Amino acid sequence: MPKSRSEIPVATVTRLALYLRELQQLQRGGTESVRSQSLAERLGLKDSQVRRDLSCLGTVGQRGVGYRVADLVTAIQHVLGTDRSWSVILVGVGNLGRALTGYKGFGQQGFQLVAAFDSDPDKIGGHIGALTIRGLDTLEAFIVEHPIDLAILAVPAESARLVASRLASCGVSGILNFAPIAVPSSDALTIQDVDLAIELQRLAFSVVRSHRPATADPKASKESGERDLHQDAPQPRDTP
Amino acid sequence: MPKSRSEIPVATVTRLALYLRELQQLQRGGTESVRSQSLAERLGLKDSQVRRDLSCLGTVGQRGVGYRVADLVTAIQHVLGTDRSWSVILVGVGNLGRALTGYKGFGQQGFQLVAAFDSDPDKIGGHIGALTIRGLDTLEAFIVEHPIDLAILAVPAESARLVASRLASCGVSGILNFAPIAVPSSDALTIQDVDLAIELQRLAFSVVRSHRPATADPKASKESGERDLHQDAPQPRDTP
Repeated sequence: MPKSRSEIPVATVTRLALYLRELQQLQRGGTESVRSQSLAERLGLKDSQVRRDLSCLGTVGQRGVGYRVADLVTAIQHVLGTDRSWSVILVGVGNLGRALTGYKGFGQQGFQLVAAFDSDPDKIGGHIGALTIRGLDTLEAFIVEHPIDLAILAVPAESARLVASRLASCGVSGILNFAPIAVPSSDALTIQDVDLAIELQRLAFSVVRSHRPATADPKASKESGERDLHQDAPQPRDTP
Repeated sequence: MPKSRSEIPVATVTRLALYLRELQQLQRGGTESVRSQSLAERLGLKDSQVRRDLSCLGTVGQRGVGYRVADLVTAIQHVLGTDRSWSVILVGVGNLGRALTGYKGFGQQGFQLVAAFDSDPDKIGGHIGALTIRGLDTLEAFIVEHPIDLAILAVPAESARLVASRLASCGVSGILNFAPIAVPSSDALTIQDVDLAIELQRLAFSVVRSHRPATADPKASKESGERDLHQDAPQPRDTP
């Protein structure tokens, strides 16, 4: 039995996305079936962890054969919601915005970047990849004409909250927020924050915890080599 | 009593970095003390969560006054390991690499980008910000002369593992990996992955779980507006 989405913890969602990345790579190479152990090795995880995660999908491997790669890809995409196409806009065409538009991974996972907006008159009308940069004042009018699911927010911290509330009022239901400021979420708006300085701080913390000679705690050395993204975190408390 | 680093769960580390970001903003505005409730509101968290997290630091607030902002900043930076300066190199000067070099947040948190490397002869010798782009073949020689703590890996997936193992063999102890491939960690090398397509997939999952009409599960709607980064995740299993 597949689990309902509300029963799947966030840490598992992240690992499912990682399995998908590996499985799609196997698929491109023509591999048709895979054992949980092989996935586990590729990702530095325990076999038991992979099997437990895949059991969320209601998919079962066959003894001696493993899982059919195509079935797993379909099942994971269904759970993640990426078995459909998502229309995404970019707001803020700075260096990061430019880098994000060129990011191949988005299109491969069903995310179609359909428009880019900026408030800088020098940028408006210019091009970023195949897109013409639109004025931020045309945001609402554009979204009325072209329903948008998600927005990538790559504006300065000062304008992030205002832009987010404009996006929410047009019916955008999810924002990937790169601005280094907390943007309020609501019942109708989900925010996923990516703060690259925070990622470096998490790395520094893990390095200090693992390697600093002052850390005489034996648990600390056992944890070295840990991968944050893959962490075996238990069910979060918001999914009772 | 402050907790030892090995006792602090990853979800708490992420929130500590978020508190730090808010506290530094308060500090720049001249605010000297802050209540946990005010931090909680700014970040969309529960007051009890903030107080529990801050108790990890061994810092206590004063009734009616709150916490001294400067004390909290110092205590969080100490725990995260950012009360010192970290030498960081960038490997891979594509669009993302360029965006990362311009990212102000790194320097503000003690991360000094000291060199950038690429293998493309057309890029070598060119400039990125204040740095001259160096040839990837000079990586080892540079690190021998200039001890490096961390590397930001923004190379294509095909070369990520080889570059990571070269970095590890020069004594780099942490890698922030933007390449969409699993890079093996080891006792001496910590990897922190940032896959931007996976972040969008996590957002899509949260949106589907919260908003899709097909989701009739009442738990799903309670979870809407949830912030992934702030999630109240329990102690991970690797820190018993």
